[in-house]
Amino acid sequence: MKIPKTKKGLKTKMKLLAAAEKVFGEKGYSDSSVSQITRKARVAMGTFYIYYDSKSEIFVDLVKKLNHDLRKAISISVTGLSTRKEIEITGFKSFFEFLKKHKSLYRIVRQAEFVDPELFQWYYNEISKGYAEGLSVAMDRGEVRRMDPELLSFELMGVADFIGMKYILWDDKLNDEMIDQVMDFILHGLLVHAENSKSLPHNGDEISHRIGNQNIPSQ
Amino acid sequence: MKIPKTKKGLKTKMKLLAAAEKVFGEKGYSDSSVSQITRKARVAMGTFYIYYDSKSEIFVDLVKKLNHDLRKAISISVTGLSTRKEIEITGFKSFFEFLKKHKSLYRIVRQAEFVDPELFQWYYNEISKGYAEGLSVAMDRGEVRRMDPELLSFELMGVADFIGMKYILWDDKLNDEMIDQVMDFILHGLLVHAENSKSLPHNGDEISHRIGNQNIPSQ
Repeated sequence: MKIPKTKKGLKTKMKLLAAAEKVFGEKGYSDSSVSQITRKARVAMGTFYIYYDSKSEIFVDLVKKLNHDLRKAISISVTGLSTRKEIEITGFKSFFEFLKKHKSLYRIVRQAEFVDPELFQWYYNEISKGYAEGLSVAMDRGEVRRMDPELLSFELMGVADFIGMKYILWDDKLNDEMIDQVMDFILHGLLVHAENSKSLPHNGDEISHRIGNQNIPSQ
Repeated sequence: MKIPKTKKGLKTKMKLLAAAEKVFGEKGYSDSSVSQITRKARVAMGTFYIYYDSKSEIFVDLVKKLNHDLRKAISISVTGLSTRKEIEITGFKSFFEFLKKHKSLYRIVRQAEFVDPELFQWYYNEISKGYAEGLSVAMDRGEVRRMDPELLSFELMGVADFIGMKYILWDDKLNDEMIDQVMDFILHGLLVHAENSKSLPHNGDEISHRIGNQNIPSQ
């Protein structure tokens, strides 16, 4: 994978990635080809090979980009929030919004299990890392009950993943009331005192700074 | 798909399904062939076609069998239990035990998304149906907080799925202490009074009967 040196080059690469997201999402990895991607992106075949050596290379890059964009969207949305309660609610909502805009996200990530099993595990472990760190900070502040932060992060990712799968991708009917119910369930399991979380001492800027900027490498 | 009329026929079909589970789990659906399945099962190619017309037909049958076996394993394990707390703990544990014995479960189910999207949704919706009914009963009894039972079932399935994925399939280190933490999180979110759940009025036989026998069709 080559990194484009010019603005135009970056734009072309983004066009290729957007096309790859559509093609892999619609047809699945095995049934997709480089020529389908270049046709969708309206880019010459030769141009593709300036940036990528193969179909598998753009696939890996796409999974990494989706992972990065998702974490960035969440971290931007929670910047400035002070309580863990607010951070969880807003973080879940921005995950759902991201999924609505990237409806082939799951299909693409799940194919990684067959294309590149390490990449598949990396995808979730990478999200877990930043999430667990934020939860750990909230535990130190006495806001979240003391648990294994990594374990808890996978529990919460599981809830978000399955609710998104069922109510956004399949039934397309996730509404605010349902999100409220999901958050109510989670916050009951999470918070030291679900009712009192708002009155806990704030140390917001430091927290949202850490959550907002950690573990989001510039690709 | 033909239903075997003799014991010997049933045994052959089970051998084919066990072989299909291994082959699809190892190679993935697209890279698997009927001849690989018959070789693994030590069954003649002609015999395969007595029971199935194609690779996709045995794949569908395998996904349905795994679904059925999982629900049956859980329902047997919770038979006779009286509180929802006990049912959740035991149900989660038997899911984890099932996954340890069927490590290709996720790989197979996820491929269904590409082979037969309706089958993929059916797999989770079918588990949710029985689960939501059990939760609904526990809500009526005042044991579980009032929520949308289907929504709750997907939240809980998401937790079980991700914990199994991370700590059984990837890291192979799920121990009792970790399961206790998972259940503690869930039961806090679930129960009206997590501490008092043991002292709630029992009506156990009826509940475990309903949970144990509903929605498990004989294949």
